[in-house]
Amino acid sequence: MMKIGIDMMGGDFAPIEAIKGIQQYIQEAAQAAHLVLVGDEAQVNPLLGPLSLRADQYTMVHAPQVIDMHEHPTRALKEKQQSSIAIGFHLLATGKIDAFISAGNTGAMLVGALYSIKALEGVLRPTIAAIIPKENGATGLLLDVGLNSDCKPEHLNQFAVMGSVYAQNILGIENPRVALLNIGEEEGKGNILAQATYPLLKENTHIQFVGNAEGRDLLLDKADVMVCDGFTGNIILKLSESLFEITKSKNIRHDYLDRFDFENYGGTPVLGVSKPVIIGHGISKAKAFANKIRLAEKMIAKDVMQKLAAELVA
Amino acid sequence: MMKIGIDMMGGDFAPIEAIKGIQQYIQEAAQAAHLVLVGDEAQVNPLLGPLSLRADQYTMVHAPQVIDMHEHPTRALKEKQQSSIAIGFHLLATGKIDAFISAGNTGAMLVGALYSIKALEGVLRPTIAAIIPKENGATGLLLDVGLNSDCKPEHLNQFAVMGSVYAQNILGIENPRVALLNIGEEEGKGNILAQATYPLLKENTHIQFVGNAEGRDLLLDKADVMVCDGFTGNIILKLSESLFEITKSKNIRHDYLDRFDFENYGGTPVLGVSKPVIIGHGISKAKAFANKIRLAEKMIAKDVMQKLAAELVA
Repeated sequence: MMKIGIDMMGGDFAPIEAIKGIQQYIQEAAQAAHLVLVGDEAQVNPLLGPLSLRADQYTMVHAPQVIDMHEHPTRALKEKQQSSIAIGFHLLATGKIDAFISAGNTGAMLVGALYSIKALEGVLRPTIAAIIPKENGATGLLLDVGLNSDCKPEHLNQFAVMGSVYAQNILGIENPRVALLNIGEEEGKGNILAQATYPLLKENTHIQFVGNAEGRDLLLDKADVMVCDGFTGNIILKLSESLFEITKSKNIRHDYLDRFDFENYGGTPVLGVSKPVIIGHGISKAKAFANKIRLAEKMIAKDVMQKLAAELVA
Repeated sequence: MMKIGIDMMGGDFAPIEAIKGIQQYIQEAAQAAHLVLVGDEAQVNPLLGPLSLRADQYTMVHAPQVIDMHEHPTRALKEKQQSSIAIGFHLLATGKIDAFISAGNTGAMLVGALYSIKALEGVLRPTIAAIIPKENGATGLLLDVGLNSDCKPEHLNQFAVMGSVYAQNILGIENPRVALLNIGEEEGKGNILAQATYPLLKENTHIQFVGNAEGRDLLLDKADVMVCDGFTGNIILKLSESLFEITKSKNIRHDYLDRFDFENYGGTPVLGVSKPVIIGHGISKAKAFANKIRLAEKMIAKDVMQKLAAELVA
């Protein structure tokens, strides 16, 4: 049975919203995964009571320390070895869990993903991806969205493959169309990185490359997977998130705008590392936690990591 | 009296919408500038009749050729020396007009701005800027939005100064706050370019630097002027434009969304060249043309180009 580790202390509304998310997940799952709850027993145990979880549905692992949202990632991970994030990655690295989820310190999660577990063979740079809601109802994938702020063409070329495998297995898109995010339509346009990446994508037989996508194509259905450097991707991601917040605060309501709510997607998967790691938004609530668990479950069940590694070395 | 040159053949709805824009401008101006209309007399003259312009209000300059929207900029400018864009830049370079406006081939306008007239002394790279509608009703400026897809720190440092002078003189923002668009809040975050640019901005006494702005701050009122490389800026600009189109097509209506309508702003100014050049959107209609003329008028009246050059060499 698969085992999914959850950082109970990560995020602005932990542990209570994590607990509620677990409840949602268990109630709605046909066959729930075994959950490994990592956190401070004194805070978590009293909240578990009302859930009436069966003893075989979960394991509690005590972690007396917490890495705060604004701590320096590397330093915090090193100094707080009894923190929920450090213990979670230890469980992942030693095979005690098959995936690890947290809505805590993003930097610490990334450092943990890169150094506690390893990049898969053949992966130059692990990456993180975000869902882009297309205006026609389709779902797109944008990567990298912040793990690799400076990229080389061969990195983007791998992101394209990893994004394709993810889109196929997790988003259910057969033969996903891959585009290079760029500032012009034709080959030869763009900055030095984009110009050098285009020919690599064009010749890559592991993907279905459809050319450049401009900023105006991001929300249109031109491509399923769009690749860019993590600087550009992160700015797009955060702009999109803020747009959702702004329309909500101004009471501008529409089904399409609701699709920009990150709670729908749960979290950002780290791709290219040996096991699934899902990083949640700091303001994750119950729905986001439940969706993160479902995403981890799907990534384990579909064996996404091994599949993308296979595509990269083939 | 100031003379503003207008490409009558540029844009999808030329010349009729240019004519309507001129009418709007003349009707609403307290003291209209002298307009120099550059275009095909056979097409433009018949449309001028109903306007009842006085002979001293305009000059028609015949340009028998047109550079189409999809022509190669450099080649088209070289081969079509009798085109409205080539003649417009010739008039600008020889002092026959004080500013030039077109909604035609963007690439040709940029090539013309860079090579027909010159960069001001001390300007490393001319730049183009776009208006960002802040959610609180304020107006922000983002630059570069596509002229310089690869930038060095010293370029961004100059964009900051040029953007500040523009914000002060044209947007009426006293002592504008300048931010570096980045993917983290603290100094030291970001890609190599952002990391190297931060200290330059921090030490620049010609601007009021307020630190990094993230993607989520773009639409918030954290800074008045935000600088980035032209690759990132262009993607943000085109994403914003498409967002306006999408919300319009889905009938999602709100005053705030209306502020994303580029027609409000007219066009994109080229900053750092010796005279004002304003590049309009290909789908410009009357309102956009009228606003482009008003923007050119303001840029001439405020002597923005000389002011920003003075800041750069001081």
